[in-house]
Amino acid sequence: MSHNQYLPGYKQISHHEWRTAENSAAFLLPTIKSQYAANPKLKLLDVGTGPGTIARDFAKLIPNGHVTATDLSEEVLAKAEKLGQEDKLSNISWQKADVWALPFEDETFDIVHTHQMLIHLIKPVEALKEMLRVTKKGGVVAAKDGDLEMWSFYPLTPGLKRFHQVLLETHERNGSSAVAGRQLVSWALQAGVKRDQIKAGFSCWSYSDEADRQMWGQSMADRIKHGQMRQKAVEFGIMKDEEAEGMYNAWIEWKNSDEGTMGMMNGEILAFK
Amino acid sequence: MSHNQYLPGYKQISHHEWRTAENSAAFLLPTIKSQYAANPKLKLLDVGTGPGTIARDFAKLIPNGHVTATDLSEEVLAKAEKLGQEDKLSNISWQKADVWALPFEDETFDIVHTHQMLIHLIKPVEALKEMLRVTKKGGVVAAKDGDLEMWSFYPLTPGLKRFHQVLLETHERNGSSAVAGRQLVSWALQAGVKRDQIKAGFSCWSYSDEADRQMWGQSMADRIKHGQMRQKAVEFGIMKDEEAEGMYNAWIEWKNSDEGTMGMMNGEILAFK
Repeated sequence: MSHNQYLPGYKQISHHEWRTAENSAAFLLPTIKSQYAANPKLKLLDVGTGPGTIARDFAKLIPNGHVTATDLSEEVLAKAEKLGQEDKLSNISWQKADVWALPFEDETFDIVHTHQMLIHLIKPVEALKEMLRVTKKGGVVAAKDGDLEMWSFYPLTPGLKRFHQVLLETHERNGSSAVAGRQLVSWALQAGVKRDQIKAGFSCWSYSDEADRQMWGQSMADRIKHGQMRQKAVEFGIMKDEEAEGMYNAWIEWKNSDEGTMGMMNGEILAFK
Repeated sequence: MSHNQYLPGYKQISHHEWRTAENSAAFLLPTIKSQYAANPKLKLLDVGTGPGTIARDFAKLIPNGHVTATDLSEEVLAKAEKLGQEDKLSNISWQKADVWALPFEDETFDIVHTHQMLIHLIKPVEALKEMLRVTKKGGVVAAKDGDLEMWSFYPLTPGLKRFHQVLLETHERNGSSAVAGRQLVSWALQAGVKRDQIKAGFSCWSYSDEADRQMWGQSMADRIKHGQMRQKAVEFGIMKDEEAEGMYNAWIEWKNSDEGTMGMMNGEILAFK
């Protein structure tokens, strides 16, 4: 067991619930559709499913196939299953699993997907190897992760700049890479995938128009007020506890500002086996 | 006349010729299609068209409408017109024009588009005002610009890091904003557009898979070897001329490296009048 603790903390998932297959896994959708057309019994694994919104979207796309959604946290899985009950989906199962020792035979799944998971690991290459192990020949591992340096926010207030700096330093001190998105190709190569079997790209999340700005700003304000990031950053000596209020206020001000914009960049790969 | 010189230099347009409406103006396409469906006589203006590849794509989308493509440089326009002759399009015209004094009546166009233009200006708000002036009521100004801080490249070699630093410093010293993409909403507000008439977002360009990496790496290598950026950076005292070789080599190495990836972020707005 060499994973590290999930930095934002398992209570900080309001933004994770905002994720859909459309806004967070668009790069994989054409592959799901073409593989499902050829094989209606498609088996898809979602590793580190969190609140499961993306996994449920996948299940809707492959009604005759099956989605297995795993997470390390039983608490999060219970919440995901509860949220999922409203869909009345019969082709999704929820299972506690550790990415270092997935409880599945070799070559079980056609598609193995993970989102914002590798960025929290000390040994992402080992996780990719394990995901490749349970992938069928001809199947694909799909991974998407942020590049935390690539936060384009405006206005450039001191509170937002300080928050971003604390986020980066805390992430790195926690032992994992803050720029995972740009390293995915390198990690896949290290996991044994040939370069011509990898399709790589980047995409953005945007939080500029009213509803998205409110959601994102409140989510970040809450993260610095109540999240594990604050506790860790103080423990690591990266920030003083009394700084939190200024950062909280900066996010509230940002979310209510007409000129507030923010984009962030994610890297993504499809690694074919 | 308060624009500044076009920093990359008018000979450095190999990447600009790579641009298409699909990869560079996707955010505007639904609006063009819906407005064209309602009005087949649609008039579209493309300001700072460069080699004109995006403008020609627009013209193909609105065969019964008309595209006017302008640029400040007669040399670039002549090249664009020549490139455009292969399309045999009868609904596009090329015209030298200065964005500070567009040679058109008020409310002439349904759609006014500009790409990677505001980022080169000292007074972007004034340019937006002028573009809004020639836009019809109910029409839209569409602008997209990079955020030059948001370059996610890997591996993080000294040569690439130095290139990026020189690019940012030279751009800022030239008098314009290097982070234009994140400021577009603010600029549109300053130009008099109401916030609820603005739709804002971000999108990425990716240069990771072989063909794109070769094109981008060679384009950047050429820029530091022959482009105006080198001359300006040396003139401003930002770099020494002998540093250019190391940066050139870094881009050549990157474009030939299996693990080389790069993404960059662009901001975009639709400002409705």
